[in-house]
Amino acid sequence: MKKKIILITGAAGMMGSELIEKLINDNYLIIGIDNFRLGKKKFIKNYLKLKNFFFFNIDLSKKIRNSRLENLIKKNILYEIWHFAANSDIQNGIKDKKVDLNNTFLTTFYSINFLKKFINKKTKIIFSSSSAIYGKVDGKINEKTLPLYPTTNYGSMKLASESFLTSFAINNKIKLYIFRFPNVVGKNLTHGIMYDFKKKFSQRNKFVNVLGNGNQRKPYSFSSEILDCMKYTISKSHKFLINHYNIGPNDQGIKVREIVKVFQKFFPGKKIRYEKKEEGWLGDVTKYKYDTKKINKLGFKFTFNSRMAIKKVVKSFFI
Amino acid sequence: MKKKIILITGAAGMMGSELIEKLINDNYLIIGIDNFRLGKKKFIKNYLKLKNFFFFNIDLSKKIRNSRLENLIKKNILYEIWHFAANSDIQNGIKDKKVDLNNTFLTTFYSINFLKKFINKKTKIIFSSSSAIYGKVDGKINEKTLPLYPTTNYGSMKLASESFLTSFAINNKIKLYIFRFPNVVGKNLTHGIMYDFKKKFSQRNKFVNVLGNGNQRKPYSFSSEILDCMKYTISKSHKFLINHYNIGPNDQGIKVREIVKVFQKFFPGKKIRYEKKEEGWLGDVTKYKYDTKKINKLGFKFTFNSRMAIKKVVKSFFI
Repeated sequence: MKKKIILITGAAGMMGSELIEKLINDNYLIIGIDNFRLGKKKFIKNYLKLKNFFFFNIDLSKKIRNSRLENLIKKNILYEIWHFAANSDIQNGIKDKKVDLNNTFLTTFYSINFLKKFINKKTKIIFSSSSAIYGKVDGKINEKTLPLYPTTNYGSMKLASESFLTSFAINNKIKLYIFRFPNVVGKNLTHGIMYDFKKKFSQRNKFVNVLGNGNQRKPYSFSSEILDCMKYTISKSHKFLINHYNIGPNDQGIKVREIVKVFQKFFPGKKIRYEKKEEGWLGDVTKYKYDTKKINKLGFKFTFNSRMAIKKVVKSFFI
Repeated sequence: MKKKIILITGAAGMMGSELIEKLINDNYLIIGIDNFRLGKKKFIKNYLKLKNFFFFNIDLSKKIRNSRLENLIKKNILYEIWHFAANSDIQNGIKDKKVDLNNTFLTTFYSINFLKKFINKKTKIIFSSSSAIYGKVDGKINEKTLPLYPTTNYGSMKLASESFLTSFAINNKIKLYIFRFPNVVGKNLTHGIMYDFKKKFSQRNKFVNVLGNGNQRKPYSFSSEILDCMKYTISKSHKFLINHYNIGPNDQGIKVREIVKVFQKFFPGKKIRYEKKEEGWLGDVTKYKYDTKKINKLGFKFTFNSRMAIKKVVKSFFI
């Protein structure tokens, strides 16, 4: 009998691997694709032996040919495409602009171009976009905020991906869900401030160097809740073909200096060295706040605010 | 002595070749780049012997290496980059999505990545975007119109290019001028309805087949006026780093059926065959109107409305 396929790109990353965990006991056939550029084998190794999980090591940034994958999809029903494959390490894309071009934009282009022949009227595309598409905005950001001036190549390639997916969904009359993520932390980290701090605080070195002056204030969410909210939102949002949502906690965010304090509880001897400049890297959006009314209206409530998400992750590191 | 460089990508296309004509007698060093995919040698052949014009046959859709070009730029001052290189044939990109990916988006990415090392604080980037980035909109479209739902890959790759250029300009603190073109016609046509009609009406065939039901209504501008308006706007618009302008006549547009009538004056015997469907091609935006207040405020007045632009071009074909 044909089964519904949940296809996950970036399956060995923070979001992809947790999504597998959430869906593996449902009656889906789960296809995971990753090339372990940022994703890690250990995040998915428990699923590899399961009968309803199929993993493919494919670089999605160029034309895809894989007859085993094609046959598997053809024999079942392509139900949802969760497209997480991307460069998620913003700083990595600053020196070499090809990092975000290849790993964010071209993975989007070639994944969708490959999957095109398998889509049906009910196939949904779910895309993890980013607050980075908005750039520096005074006041709260909602889904109608303009102009869209991304300040990093990371953000511009996410926005470029949104554009491509939008015209594709319109031409093929299928549903597209674009979730613009805040900073997301979780148990399967592959990059970012929490990943860096974990390394820096655990090292023998007496000093911890922080990027920027520490006054950056951003909202953080817990990966598991982001996924729950996405699943919930998709199930409740039927009206439109194209759907944009700012997703995350409805709070003021948390300062880098406060995150540092959470770490210092576990490593009280460390000395912290801040930089003089506000930005942690070229194009760092040092402060932003989300207006999450649109997604909240559908009914999902986040239980973790930014501070709680950070605390939970730090505890998971060291306790 | 160092000269100011005007660098034009897509130099052998409709817009690029006319821009050379407009600037060739000024005291610039003009660099034209094209690979004659849509551009034509005959449009630029008069300039090739001139001392202040340098032409390079380069495919800009991949990594660029050209030491002659590099040396030429290095010895002078990169003053303005007019980035016209793109797939301008919308229908061409429908079957094969790589056409717009390569010729619109990747030409943008690789041109700018190549030119990056030569830019200075005063370098300006001028980009020809399109009304296609807005998709289907009820009422007049201004620069704050949302959502941006391009209905063609052509439009989505223009929007993706805008995104990339925006983050680049912000990171490098240089001025970016994005002009969102209406339908543009001119003497050096390479594609589009006027190009097709010229061919179809001139052929022996008794019938002229029209794409769509002929009720499509869009604004048209004359290429020479678009360029004059762009030059004027750049000279008047100093306040912001990033500048978006809807450019074109402030009118109701002209219907395809009216364009047909203009041609029929010269070929009264032709029988016209319309299709039943509204759209000329998948994702055709059959009607749109521009609100051009933002650009008009700066002072430039278009003398050609849509109908006049069409008439002028048809006359130039047959008289």
